[in-house]
Amino acid sequence: MIEASDAVRGRPVGVFDSGVGGLTVLHELLVRLPHEDYVYLADSARLPYGDRSPEQVAAFALEVAEELLARQIKLLVVACNTATAAAMPVLRERMVRTTPGVEVLGVVAPAAVQAVAATRRGRVGVLGTPATIATGAYAAAIAAIDPFVAVTSVSCGDLAGRIEAGTIDEPLVAEVRAHCAPLRAAGVDAVILGCTHYPLVRPIIQRMLGPDTAIVTSGAPLARQVEHVLGARGLDSRAEGEGRYGFLCTGEPDAFCRRGTRFLQLPLGAVERVALGAAVAA
Amino acid sequence: MIEASDAVRGRPVGVFDSGVGGLTVLHELLVRLPHEDYVYLADSARLPYGDRSPEQVAAFALEVAEELLARQIKLLVVACNTATAAAMPVLRERMVRTTPGVEVLGVVAPAAVQAVAATRRGRVGVLGTPATIATGAYAAAIAAIDPFVAVTSVSCGDLAGRIEAGTIDEPLVAEVRAHCAPLRAAGVDAVILGCTHYPLVRPIIQRMLGPDTAIVTSGAPLARQVEHVLGARGLDSRAEGEGRYGFLCTGEPDAFCRRGTRFLQLPLGAVERVALGAAVAA
Repeated sequence: MIEASDAVRGRPVGVFDSGVGGLTVLHELLVRLPHEDYVYLADSARLPYGDRSPEQVAAFALEVAEELLARQIKLLVVACNTATAAAMPVLRERMVRTTPGVEVLGVVAPAAVQAVAATRRGRVGVLGTPATIATGAYAAAIAAIDPFVAVTSVSCGDLAGRIEAGTIDEPLVAEVRAHCAPLRAAGVDAVILGCTHYPLVRPIIQRMLGPDTAIVTSGAPLARQVEHVLGARGLDSRAEGEGRYGFLCTGEPDAFCRRGTRFLQLPLGAVERVALGAAVAA
Repeated sequence: MIEASDAVRGRPVGVFDSGVGGLTVLHELLVRLPHEDYVYLADSARLPYGDRSPEQVAAFALEVAEELLARQIKLLVVACNTATAAAMPVLRERMVRTTPGVEVLGVVAPAAVQAVAATRRGRVGVLGTPATIATGAYAAAIAAIDPFVAVTSVSCGDLAGRIEAGTIDEPLVAEVRAHCAPLRAAGVDAVILGCTHYPLVRPIIQRMLGPDTAIVTSGAPLARQVEHVLGARGLDSRAEGEGRYGFLCTGEPDAFCRRGTRFLQLPLGAVERVALGAAVAA
């Protein structure tokens, strides 16, 4: 059995997003792998990433990775669909070259596996931001796992922004209903929430799609893959009790705290401000 | 929503194996998709396929496919690990060229998806015949789905032959224990039974591996993928009640019947003898 040293096993898992959405992924990690330590970096001075070019997102992601690697993480989690689509190859290449023991995981592939495992009728839906749907990343990941699964993708405009604004009202319900209509028409029985903000309106989505539709979020499948990497390499923490978690933020810490608790569903505590490359100048 | 005509939907699913092992796959299909009709072809005059060259197995598989296609199947299921490993590309090419509406599915990929979805620690075991393990097909399929999952494969000698002989005794238990030892040492928490005979000793294997190890057989994941193909293409039967199933056999029908019931766990009924290409001469 492969085993790492105690010192390496005790290192934190690094989690990265442009803002608060990735906290729904951290939430799953905290619940499913409670013995681990985590450090979360929000590049909030430069959000939203969705409006940036893929090249710019990749450059930002590399700066974030350097900051987290300097804090001795044992694994890097990209808890952001836009960054996963734009930066994964460049991050993998960086890791293999300089810190080969540290893997980088993204949100797309693990969710695709769970959706394929969940669908019975072979019809999967994907809800995502325009940037994520435009990459076709989910459809490609599903086709690679099971080419016989039909995928219906829906670009959900600024639903993420609306969710972050925080008002749950009838116009929001109407918008979710409209996004779900093509999925109902296609007869899907499993739906991937391809944006880390969407789990906050999961009850609305479930109501629109019906109780027999399996909903797959980014967090749980990614937590499962984190468990795979740590387990397969003997990197899992053997500490007793709950691990620690802390936050870094390139923007205003108070705003991050204010918006973040609803996404994490756990207390945030202190947030440390960090300056990354062009972040201060941007 | 994609829909086929009533006439096409009412056609049977073709299932193919060299002998009785594939009946454990048909069993799952009969239980999980009971409204469908099935026709099963056992190429028992030429078994075991495990001793043949991949080229010969591919040639046999093409002859079987022609016989089943002549009987108007809507989907071809290769319920045999050896034939899946050796003949899948050639069968796919044949289908795309001549009968593009009829897909061909094999046992390896669906089981790999379910094992990746089931493992928590990221350590999967595979038990298979020497021929199947030698191809590395399962390890490759798992790596394609999740490269972070560690795979431990064990070649189980003639365990299939021993199971087919039918005696459940201490030497059999000792043999299963020996095959499971490397999986226990590797700390796997999900195990693929990569041979259609092995589900008959599943209780012995489960006892060796412990109740927390998920066991993935060929039948259930393949039945799920059959449901995907039929569902995604509107090819699923809308008939009420239970469908029909029938058997074709290139060897001696009585021997097939005698050995088959234990694998199918349902009555076999009549078996029709068919002659394929070189089958009579072989």
